[in-house]
Amino acid sequence: MSLAHGRPYLAIPGPSVMPDAVLQAMHVPAPNIYEGALVEMTHAMIPDLKRIARTEHYAAIYIANGHGAWEAALSNVLNPGDKVLVPATGRFAFGWADMAEGLGLVPQIIDFGLRAPIDAARVEEVLAADTGHEIKAVLFSHVDTATSIRNDPAALRAALDSAGHPALLMADCIASLACDRFEMDAWGVDVMVAGCQKGLMTPPGLAFVFFNERGHEARDRVTRVSRYWDWRPRSEPDFFYNFFGGTAPTHHLLGLRAALDLLHGEGIEAVWARHETLARTVWAACEVWSEAGAMRMNIEDRSLRSHAVTALGVGFGNGAKLREWTAQNAGLTLGLGIGMASEEDPESSGFFRIGHMGHLNAHMVLGALGVIEAGMQAVQIPYGKGALAAAAGVVAAG
Amino acid sequence: MSLAHGRPYLAIPGPSVMPDAVLQAMHVPAPNIYEGALVEMTHAMIPDLKRIARTEHYAAIYIANGHGAWEAALSNVLNPGDKVLVPATGRFAFGWADMAEGLGLVPQIIDFGLRAPIDAARVEEVLAADTGHEIKAVLFSHVDTATSIRNDPAALRAALDSAGHPALLMADCIASLACDRFEMDAWGVDVMVAGCQKGLMTPPGLAFVFFNERGHEARDRVTRVSRYWDWRPRSEPDFFYNFFGGTAPTHHLLGLRAALDLLHGEGIEAVWARHETLARTVWAACEVWSEAGAMRMNIEDRSLRSHAVTALGVGFGNGAKLREWTAQNAGLTLGLGIGMASEEDPESSGFFRIGHMGHLNAHMVLGALGVIEAGMQAVQIPYGKGALAAAAGVVAAG
Amino acid sequence: MSLAHGRPYLAIPGPSVMPDAVLQAMHVPAPNIYEGALVEMTHAMIPDLKRIARTEHYAAIYIANGHGAWEAALSNVLNPGDKVLVPATGRFAFGWADMAEGLGLVPQIIDFGLRAPIDAARVEEVLAADTGHEIKAVLFSHVDTATSIRNDPAALRAALDSAGHPALLMADCIASLACDRFEMDAWGVDVMVAGCQKGLMTPPGLAFVFFNERGHEARDRVTRVSRYWDWRPRSEPDFFYNFFGGTAPTHHLLGLRAALDLLHGEGIEAVWARHETLARTVWAACEVWSEAGAMRMNIEDRSLRSHAVTALGVGFGNGAKLREWTAQNAGLTLGLGIGMASEEDPESSGFFRIGHMGHLNAHMVLGALGVIEAGMQAVQIPYGKGALAAAAGVVAAG
Amino acid sequence: MSLAHGRPYLAIPGPSVMPDAVLQAMHVPAPNIYEGALVEMTHAMIPDLKRIARTEHYAAIYIANGHGAWEAALSNVLNPGDKVLVPATGRFAFGWADMAEGLGLVPQIIDFGLRAPIDAARVEEVLAADTGHEIKAVLFSHVDTATSIRNDPAALRAALDSAGHPALLMADCIASLACDRFEMDAWGVDVMVAGCQKGLMTPPGLAFVFFNERGHEARDRVTRVSRYWDWRPRSEPDFFYNFFGGTAPTHHLLGLRAALDLLHGEGIEAVWARHETLARTVWAACEVWSEAGAMRMNIEDRSLRSHAVTALGVGFGNGAKLREWTAQNAGLTLGLGIGMASEEDPESSGFFRIGHMGHLNAHMVLGALGVIEAGMQAVQIPYGKGALAAAAGVVAAG
Repeated sequence: MSLAHGRPYLAIPGPSVMPDAVLQAMHVPAPNIYEGALVEMTHAMIPDLKRIARTEHYAAIYIANGHGAWEAALSNVLNPGDKVLVPATGRFAFGWADMAEGLGLVPQIIDFGLRAPIDAARVEEVLAADTGHEIKAVLFSHVDTATSIRNDPAALRAALDSAGHPALLMADCIASLACDRFEMDAWGVDVMVAGCQKGLMTPPGLAFVFFNERGHEARDRVTRVSRYWDWRPRSEPDFFYNFFGGTAPTHHLLGLRAALDLLHGEGIEAVWARHETLARTVWAACEVWSEAGAMRMNIEDRSLRSHAVTALGVGFGNGAKLREWTAQNAGLTLGLGIGMASEEDPESSGFFRIGHMGHLNAHMVLGALGVIEAGMQAVQIPYGKGALAAAAGVVAAG
Repeated sequence: MSLAHGRPYLAIPGPSVMPDAVLQAMHVPAPNIYEGALVEMTHAMIPDLKRIARTEHYAAIYIANGHGAWEAALSNVLNPGDKVLVPATGRFAFGWADMAEGLGLVPQIIDFGLRAPIDAARVEEVLAADTGHEIKAVLFSHVDTATSIRNDPAALRAALDSAGHPALLMADCIASLACDRFEMDAWGVDVMVAGCQKGLMTPPGLAFVFFNERGHEARDRVTRVSRYWDWRPRSEPDFFYNFFGGTAPTHHLLGLRAALDLLHGEGIEAVWARHETLARTVWAACEVWSEAGAMRMNIEDRSLRSHAVTALGVGFGNGAKLREWTAQNAGLTLGLGIGMASEEDPESSGFFRIGHMGHLNAHMVLGALGVIEAGMQAVQIPYGKGALAAAAGVVAAG
Repeated sequence: MSLAHGRPYLAIPGPSVMPDAVLQAMHVPAPNIYEGALVEMTHAMIPDLKRIARTEHYAAIYIANGHGAWEAALSNVLNPGDKVLVPATGRFAFGWADMAEGLGLVPQIIDFGLRAPIDAARVEEVLAADTGHEIKAVLFSHVDTATSIRNDPAALRAALDSAGHPALLMADCIASLACDRFEMDAWGVDVMVAGCQKGLMTPPGLAFVFFNERGHEARDRVTRVSRYWDWRPRSEPDFFYNFFGGTAPTHHLLGLRAALDLLHGEGIEAVWARHETLARTVWAACEVWSEAGAMRMNIEDRSLRSHAVTALGVGFGNGAKLREWTAQNAGLTLGLGIGMASEEDPESSGFFRIGHMGHLNAHMVLGALGVIEAGMQAVQIPYGKGALAAAAGVVAAG
Repeated sequence: MSLAHGRPYLAIPGPSVMPDAVLQAMHVPAPNIYEGALVEMTHAMIPDLKRIARTEHYAAIYIANGHGAWEAALSNVLNPGDKVLVPATGRFAFGWADMAEGLGLVPQIIDFGLRAPIDAARVEEVLAADTGHEIKAVLFSHVDTATSIRNDPAALRAALDSAGHPALLMADCIASLACDRFEMDAWGVDVMVAGCQKGLMTPPGLAFVFFNERGHEARDRVTRVSRYWDWRPRSEPDFFYNFFGGTAPTHHLLGLRAALDLLHGEGIEAVWARHETLARTVWAACEVWSEAGAMRMNIEDRSLRSHAVTALGVGFGNGAKLREWTAQNAGLTLGLGIGMASEEDPESSGFFRIGHMGHLNAHMVLGALGVIEAGMQAVQIPYGKGALAAAAGVVAAG
């Protein structure tokens, strides 16, 4: 007998749970890609997309995953040989740096480890020292999906400004967009990349690059941008196929439209507030569980935690055991630990992650927490008592 | 800001949550109803349906809801003027009795109130006193969806046998089939009615009547059975359309097939065990909450509680308030109280019900319980502490 | 190699092709059946349903197929022993008469054969002779799905009036509603039955009875109407569940709502005109094919042909052969001949039917005709030349 | 009144009609992307994908459209400055050449116009003259979607061999894969690109590059391949995410799996034969229509025509008029003319295209032809008589 036979719940940090309205919108015959409803819908969707990113400037859509958007963003504003500064707070900044290297760029990494945010002062120092302005861009993850840390884009902008450095500020918001508050224009981010499969609640397959006038100008200085990555025709299309550098991703566009309707129907401020409250719900439970000493929240300071994902350590092997138990016995799939490997735990088996992003309500979160507590009891991970009541209390307070 | 924006969860006592596989199976073009795949599938499905009811005898499918099945069952075995004995433990036995009256039958009700099961000894007395065998059938609800009481069919069979009374034993398993253990043949039930929208996890629209040889013989004694209700062609069809007395319910059949695949894939014993464990999970929380005095479980004795639904009192107006709060703020729709009206509470506003039937896993149940606790806190219904931990403990133990 | 691997087309006279919008509307989680969106939607849908039937009076919805609606309609207005007059023009009037017999009514059939319409004068004679007004109702099929004949309701009303006979005029519009023009109030039809799976383009499972004040009064004279069939609570509900005599057919209601949106979006007059033009398209081809002598249209007079279905004879065995060929080789399922049996052809194997009802455009019809011509060539049924061009010509003229 | 209200049919040369099984497979919750069913399914799918391309060598999947695959293929085997020879027979070879230019390659185009195939002798001459082997690759479209010409890959391989030239032979099979016979290994094609949205019947969003050992070796000689385009980890993955250079395209993979099941269930030889027969069906009609002088098939020689798409001229403005008529009046969307512009007809308004690729049966094709004839009559384009009968004759012969 298993208690898993019901509607399975995927609480990994992306892909997130797809709303029924999104899946329904995609369950349609192939539309005409040359004219008519799809063409009109796409044009009308761009402003709605930019409102999610809080920018009034440019948006380019790519049929790609987030890694594609990383490459696209870099390709449009940097020339081979250019230096990029990469303050890293987990796994994904390294990934982006590697992508940069693949394009012939020269990444300079400042590693802040797995449990601390970017220290903007440190970044400012490095930039100030770069008097020749060899660094052309600063690349960072707003939220690192592996460590669940959330960095402060405005602080980085201030660092650049204080240092009087002209480098572009480029943010990876793949894990955070439409979950954690992000204000592209107000915070002075020049280029931002995102994907559709997390806060945008659409099956993986679309990625986005947003950029401002500084990004636009940087594009002019690049000697060669490959046709697929070139954001010019995509952001300022003459023909419909320019949007996508070829055939339109018909069904994904329909799904994305439905997702944007849900987000704007709720209101982006309300969406952020919901994620913030549900993140506090998760934390309330985790903090109580942690009192017994076996569990450790990867990020201690609440103000540095993502509202979209929470990374946790539970001791060698226990993360894997817990995840297996919840999937087999309760219908809950948790995210595995990634990028937390150590000599003692080369597979990050002592970690797991709770995704709490996108199409997410109190029922889903409280259910996940209930199952995790049941799982810890079942696989014998000690935990502090009263966690679920504490979590419910956060929901009650709203 | 609301925490309800996510996948809504409907925890009412039917319709239950539909598995994706069922909805998918129904999202298909119209099939041929005269020959081919649908026809073959239907023939092959009848044995699988009977295995759910634990009978080797007859099954008739109706395009109807449960009320239709009530009428169908009565129509096939009783003549106008016949007396039927109806031991009642809540709302639905009265409903069936009313249906009987509508057919010209004469129901004799023994009312056991809203919080007690059928007393088989009392039934036996009445039957023993019916020396002329005017009572032709005993009608009862296995589980009453309003009160959440579960009656004992085997005890009723024993009562009939002890009284040496030839009346048919007719069970309403609408709320219980594929949730609470039910052994039609072993327990000596002659006629049983059910619907597709609860334990069978299919959108409302199909109903079933199962009957044994005694039911079959009773049919022969009925002078006039209307064509639509006549179970003869439906249970022993010469042509495909006989199954349904006309056009086949194509999409429902496809959905039901998918549901039966899920149930038999899990195994009916495992399905019952899952419902039993998840019911105990619900009870564990409710019993702790009840300690504060505001909440009262309608059925005190665990052995008399349904594994599919739990009815609760929380004080005048509070049931309605709680239900509204959970729907508006947390994505959880609870069942309303029905049939519990009193002079002080004519709308049963002090009651609510938790449906825990069908496609149901630990995540769904623990989430519902977490939301209920949050809701009670929010709308200020006092509750005992530690309920969620207790519920998680039941899941942990499996 | 087969040319059938593509989107199959079902051209049987019901179930008709389901629009994507209908199937999509049904691919949703179970909704709350006690309050909220579904309840409001249902109330708002009733007037839209009545507009399809062109009546301002009463509508009752049944979870049932058309046979259920037959029984429901009879149950509400007739008492056992009542005589009903049944002018028959094919199979289905006999079916309804049989249903009447099952309820203890006494049908008097006037058989007009398989290729002629009801002769209203003949009906008037019979009614005039019934000076004691023993005949309580006249039952007829607007369109007989087997023969594809279309009868004239207004002529029957005139016959009743001329004869000064108070019998109810009861129409079966199962095959015709939302295909062939039908004006319930203007034509003086008292009771009308229909199903959802033909012109209403929804998977089988709902049936409808419409009735006017005369029907309403007749209900008062019936001594016993079973609860499930009683149209009173269904047409004038105090509670939501009254609409359906129990649990609501949630997913069907959502599908029906989508279908009604399509129909009213197009406009019922335009829907009828489309069916009329597409029927003429089919006839244009069939009439040319018939010139070679092997094919015979069952109804010769165009003014008597249904706009929803066409029955054809092609010689012993050839109907079955042709149907098999088109399904195996071209992705087209044709309707089989029913009710056309003779001594030489006990299985109606010399007949087939083309359904052309519901969600139907010129592409679907011209494709079906193209395949039929290919099939006749392949299985060697002689046919007149130029049929497809003639059919295309009708579409061209619009 | 319009005859378009039914199931719309999209007969454009991609995206093609999506099978219900594909759309259904994609209507599912987000799966786990780290382990479990999706991971296993993907590994098992690669051989099935290669069987479609008739290669036993390497396959790389990209989240991209066909243009992305063009860029990916070039990126892996060529260095900036490399010369590529591009024999062009329509629009798409120019597109690929432009993509090459975007990567810093130097395309040398041989333009064979819009109505003739590649002349392999001419290619051989050019290659023979390139004694320094500066040409590193020959790029060609197997089928040009604009002109509907089909080129002969084996003849090009022979040309390369005769010239003793080591350039890679690179084929664009975006329009032809799984429609027109293509034998990658047997015909000596080194690199091949394709998309999912035509013969593979899946919504746009996936693209494929297949390559053999010569392609594999060429990769080794490339100094820098961007991470996203690098086919090494994609074709020989260490981790699941390597397949996609990041997040997996979950729903597209499920759709593609369903499409491959359909194709292999039918058998690739049968799939090709079906396309060939249905292409002949289309041609039979077009050739008859052309007799009146107004219509002209773009490719006269049957042996040079694609089996997936047919381009037609009907005189200035008439293509646009016809397309509008069929969409508005009959539910058929035809492909517009592209790349056929002339001084007199700068918008290619005199052309249209019939897509006949993918999930396609005789009913769909004959319906499209019927509608086209109706449309030509309605918008007054003269046409030869007997076209539809001729087309049906091809289907009859099978």
